[in-house]
Amino acid sequence: MVIVSKNNPLVKELAALKEKKFRKERGAFLVEGEKMVRECLKSGLAVSRVIAREDYRGEIVPDAVLGQDAFKAVCDEKTPQRLLAEVKLPQTELRAPQASCLLLDGVSDPANVGAIVRTAVAAGYREIYCVSCADPYSPKSVRASMSGVFFATVMQGSREEALRSLAGVPLIAADMNGENAFAFSAPPKFALCIGNEGNGLSQQVSERAAYTVKIPMGEHTESLNAAVSAGILMYLLKKNLFC
Amino acid sequence: MVIVSKNNPLVKELAALKEKKFRKERGAFLVEGEKMVRECLKSGLAVSRVIAREDYRGEIVPDAVLGQDAFKAVCDEKTPQRLLAEVKLPQTELRAPQASCLLLDGVSDPANVGAIVRTAVAAGYREIYCVSCADPYSPKSVRASMSGVFFATVMQGSREEALRSLAGVPLIAADMNGENAFAFSAPPKFALCIGNEGNGLSQQVSERAAYTVKIPMGEHTESLNAAVSAGILMYLLKKNLFC
Repeated sequence: MVIVSKNNPLVKELAALKEKKFRKERGAFLVEGEKMVRECLKSGLAVSRVIAREDYRGEIVPDAVLGQDAFKAVCDEKTPQRLLAEVKLPQTELRAPQASCLLLDGVSDPANVGAIVRTAVAAGYREIYCVSCADPYSPKSVRASMSGVFFATVMQGSREEALRSLAGVPLIAADMNGENAFAFSAPPKFALCIGNEGNGLSQQVSERAAYTVKIPMGEHTESLNAAVSAGILMYLLKKNLFC
Repeated sequence: MVIVSKNNPLVKELAALKEKKFRKERGAFLVEGEKMVRECLKSGLAVSRVIAREDYRGEIVPDAVLGQDAFKAVCDEKTPQRLLAEVKLPQTELRAPQASCLLLDGVSDPANVGAIVRTAVAAGYREIYCVSCADPYSPKSVRASMSGVFFATVMQGSREEALRSLAGVPLIAADMNGENAFAFSAPPKFALCIGNEGNGLSQQVSERAAYTVKIPMGEHTESLNAAVSAGILMYLLKKNLFC
């Protein structure tokens, strides 16, 4: 049976997951697009429901089928694909990291958060502490992470909690007044700290930093896009692993 | 005198610059925000007019003052700042590069184009060939470039023209099947080629590549965001300069 009404309770329930408040309340988030749904099913995350648009013809068997308008009402993407999933939010308690990790301190653009998560998984920073950031489980972040957010351990909490979990782990702050990251030798286990797009790191995190590193830049440039500079630093700090 | 009507000819003329067709026709583009306008004035680009919103109180003397609604009609930004400028499009003929440069081959997201230009200026890739890309002078690209686009030499043309201009310059293609970029030694002068977000480089550019490099990635990741991978590669290929 195809659900056509935008007022159908399932449609309303799913559409509400575009908002953080409802994601938290219901402990779920949305994954859009066949490729992403397939990656999510592989990741081991708990997929509660797979929803198809009526013209979906792939091999994944959906739990419900929606008409064009109802499907569009659920999607965040401007050009919706034909499949989406409702997935349980992983409930990750803050704990000490097992390896080098990331601390995102006020990164506010969901596309930046997603792109950073994507790079983090690629570069082997699987544990990501998020403090005062855009929600990594928002549709925009999930999309920008490609499937990265399914494979990362994302820990959200207060700055104090995050810093407590990172006790004993040297923090490396990204800041334009730091040491040249190309010449810097990172300790074997560290937390790379990336700050807000406009204002950089919070004072609390800066004060706790054991090292400060910068990406060298020519004149006329004060800073790079947060996702770009996080990506460059994630790779540079592990350069010995990659050579 | 404050211009309040959205139908005022100046307002319509400026608002039209949000579209590529009119930018080309009129040979001009828009720069939004006081900081960006100031950088633009410093850059040596030809600023035709500075336009202020009626509540602007900075030190730059505007050529015209608009009311809130008229100003908003001109701006592309959702939360418009109080100053903008109309700037002449630099008319840059395609020519051979003087130093290592970038070839953007089908990069379609204006925010990616802008972020790449921003990083390019920082990393010293001042000459940027753009083929089938989002327009680097669109409001979104200009904004994402921060002031980068004012300081770069952007050359737009057909793929054939770009490749002709790059005759004799080794092309380095970014591709997941390439050599590990960490272990790779770049020649002294090269063109780094960055492809489309979904489909990578065109066949024409791939075929002309002298080298192919990749960023090493862990499992679960096939690719990185185009701006992030361009940023990592721009810096890695010049690592000897930065160490």
